[in-house]
Amino acid sequence: MPALEEIFSPRGVAVVGASPGNLSFAELVVYALKEAKFPAVFPVNPKYKEVLGLPCYASLREIPGAVDHVVVSIPAESVLKLLDDCAAKRVKSVHFFTAGFGETGEVQGEELERAMLVKAKAGGFRIIGPNCVGLYVPKNRLVNSFNSPLEPGPIAFISQSGGHAQNLPDFSRARGLRFSKVVSYGNALDVNESELLDYFSRDPETEIIAAYIEGVKDGQRFMRAMAETAAQKPVVIYKGGRTEAGRRAAYGHTASMTSSVAIFDALCRQVNAIQVDDLDEMIDVLTALRFVRPLPRDTRAVLMGAGGGPSVLASDEMEDEGLRVPPLSPAVQAELKQSLPVAGSIFINPLDTPNLIAPEAISTAMQVLGRVPGIQMLIYHLGFHPISRWGLGRLSLENFVKPAIGVMKEAVRKTGKPVLLALRPPQGLDGMTEFLVVQQAFVEAGFPVFYSMRHLARAMVRVIAWYGSCPDSGGPVSLP
Amino acid sequence: MPALEEIFSPRGVAVVGASPGNLSFAELVVYALKEAKFPAVFPVNPKYKEVLGLPCYASLREIPGAVDHVVVSIPAESVLKLLDDCAAKRVKSVHFFTAGFGETGEVQGEELERAMLVKAKAGGFRIIGPNCVGLYVPKNRLVNSFNSPLEPGPIAFISQSGGHAQNLPDFSRARGLRFSKVVSYGNALDVNESELLDYFSRDPETEIIAAYIEGVKDGQRFMRAMAETAAQKPVVIYKGGRTEAGRRAAYGHTASMTSSVAIFDALCRQVNAIQVDDLDEMIDVLTALRFVRPLPRDTRAVLMGAGGGPSVLASDEMEDEGLRVPPLSPAVQAELKQSLPVAGSIFINPLDTPNLIAPEAISTAMQVLGRVPGIQMLIYHLGFHPISRWGLGRLSLENFVKPAIGVMKEAVRKTGKPVLLALRPPQGLDGMTEFLVVQQAFVEAGFPVFYSMRHLARAMVRVIAWYGSCPDSGGPVSLP
Repeated sequence: MPALEEIFSPRGVAVVGASPGNLSFAELVVYALKEAKFPAVFPVNPKYKEVLGLPCYASLREIPGAVDHVVVSIPAESVLKLLDDCAAKRVKSVHFFTAGFGETGEVQGEELERAMLVKAKAGGFRIIGPNCVGLYVPKNRLVNSFNSPLEPGPIAFISQSGGHAQNLPDFSRARGLRFSKVVSYGNALDVNESELLDYFSRDPETEIIAAYIEGVKDGQRFMRAMAETAAQKPVVIYKGGRTEAGRRAAYGHTASMTSSVAIFDALCRQVNAIQVDDLDEMIDVLTALRFVRPLPRDTRAVLMGAGGGPSVLASDEMEDEGLRVPPLSPAVQAELKQSLPVAGSIFINPLDTPNLIAPEAISTAMQVLGRVPGIQMLIYHLGFHPISRWGLGRLSLENFVKPAIGVMKEAVRKTGKPVLLALRPPQGLDGMTEFLVVQQAFVEAGFPVFYSMRHLARAMVRVIAWYGSCPDSGGPVSLP
Repeated sequence: MPALEEIFSPRGVAVVGASPGNLSFAELVVYALKEAKFPAVFPVNPKYKEVLGLPCYASLREIPGAVDHVVVSIPAESVLKLLDDCAAKRVKSVHFFTAGFGETGEVQGEELERAMLVKAKAGGFRIIGPNCVGLYVPKNRLVNSFNSPLEPGPIAFISQSGGHAQNLPDFSRARGLRFSKVVSYGNALDVNESELLDYFSRDPETEIIAAYIEGVKDGQRFMRAMAETAAQKPVVIYKGGRTEAGRRAAYGHTASMTSSVAIFDALCRQVNAIQVDDLDEMIDVLTALRFVRPLPRDTRAVLMGAGGGPSVLASDEMEDEGLRVPPLSPAVQAELKQSLPVAGSIFINPLDTPNLIAPEAISTAMQVLGRVPGIQMLIYHLGFHPISRWGLGRLSLENFVKPAIGVMKEAVRKTGKPVLLALRPPQGLDGMTEFLVVQQAFVEAGFPVFYSMRHLARAMVRVIAWYGSCPDSGGPVSLP
């Protein structure tokens, strides 16, 4: 059997079931591979001579070049014959987008899955899925959605859901997250979560592992894989099907008999994996793991930003989620008041002064507060609301962003405390371009950016708890 | 003393402390009033002859026309003299943006506030603030931020924070929320939360009241005002300063001695006011109150939308927040399977079929599910993720939005169940225009739109609990 490593670097990819112009998944894959300049893409469909400008073949066997990986989107009843072609063509892996197998709950679907597995074993190839979107390996230009970044990064994502597998890289792109490999594995007929965890625990290109799991195939093996993996790298898990309705949906989705939530939670606690409640939180935790340097081992923070009401809200959200915002001593307040305006200001942590958008004020505040004993992180928040948009150029790259990045980097260097940003996006197009430009500059400078204080706080509390439970040796390999 | 009603409809507005080009609040107000075509705006500043193209006066007394309302942004030490001018000019109300009073915690600030109040009483005018952004009354073109909608709506908002007072209308604009009056009242030296609640409980232009409160001036009076108001109209409250850090921030912000959270919570429960935890949740609850018709009295919902993983996530979020997603009977599932595809689908509630973006499929699903006994609402969710953006025009107005709105309106009419939408926005500019166009069409058609299932569920659970506690007469005046 081919190793997973071989499967992630195929020479040729065939897309079976591709049709021109029907906007199907198969057509999307052909489009995306072409767009990514993957060198050898072969649409297969006896009805067409050409798909999106590429020659289309009547069957796998007619393809002239080598085919290592096959993407399949044809009805379930035709797949067994196709698998004979796969064996003849000596492919290494077959990914079934096709659904209508075990997850339908019908006996025929389950029987078909067993027959597929027998053919794969005999033919010497692996099966990914069925009922998933397969592989995304940026460095090898192997993609399954259009407009996917080809720049690799240190995060691996295994997902039982194709939607989440495509959404996570897309939603987290602007936050600077990039991926080594993303594997959507659907019904997990052959390649499953435990094998993938084992692989990524050893993969030198992967430093952080994210997982969306609805149900596991072999509980004992999964527990071993989790324990071994989480001891080496941070593992962030979002368990789908935590509620009754979610469990029903997961069974209908991937035929997963979702395991007991209590057992799953206990396992995660025991092996020190980080559990999250939804995809947004997964992105937040990954952002914290990837960009907060140094990682704090304690929850005490200073909050600074412009706006009284927003400061009250942000303080409540932080403490509500479990970060601590300790009061500043009179001496520290007095030091701040020497160079920051007093009218319209709050000095007691949170710190809010009307000029806290000026780089010099940010610099003073961060240099003073970063040295306060016990404070573990400096949090700067900024809302892209009407007032901040008024006065064109107020938040421009030249006037605000570049000098602010300069003074924040200096503060990190001089105080040894990480700077985190909560940038609240506007709710419409108005101001969105400005927001994205500002976000991009901070992200490219290496800062962790969150979209609200609640999101920031929730993620940091989880990451600090995880880090606090890592061995004192400094925890997992590459962090922090 | 002038009644609040008079204060909301001033003839002339003077802006004291306006300077050209310094991007101050005073300049913003001049700019905004001009932009809104408010008929009589008078900048006042002895240093300038003109501000933003308007004649600028050396003092209030020199203004030729009538001035009913004065916006003040000058240092705290100059305000007493100004109040003499206000009395001489026979104004009705003075709004102090100026900060540096009681909220500084210094004795001088508190003494100054007392002297201001004496002058206001003697001069026969009211004070709004200090330390706030004052009034926004769209129908009278009285604005305090640029680009504010002039279209009025049934929601009043009273806010101790100027930031929140400006942000709520801005952030909720795309969701279709419009306001009768927004009052930012800061330190509440004169006009305070209780008087405002009393006023809005009687205001015929206001059907729903939202409030951001850090602390109350007179607990007994506030309790009476809350009880009387909440008996007549829904009151949505966000209490700032629920945590230690939030309390410190609130004291630094508006000198509010925030009341005990436990007492505040008990009061809200007793009078049946709806408490929310942040500004996003306030917008969600207002959206539900404003646009969900009929309002359900029970939490049972059907969830429909395209995507397996997203359906699992959405189900978990719904039940986690307290909405119920009851399983569908085999008979109902069989009925759905007659016209919806089985492969790649989930039929058990949630309902997820690959074609659930097609108006005919939406129509079938809603007509069948809206008649299932016990089901109170129909929830449709859609993510603007890569797949949905692929296939240009897939979510276009002509192909999707207009026909979908048609079939959803028909479903509401025929089944008597409300349709709610969870539209997940993209995270960047890519797809944002399309998202906003789709959102706008649904909002203009009168549908409630939420940005995630968690947000939708949390808001609906709060609104259903509120509605369930209203008298059987049908509850507050104008709802549902």
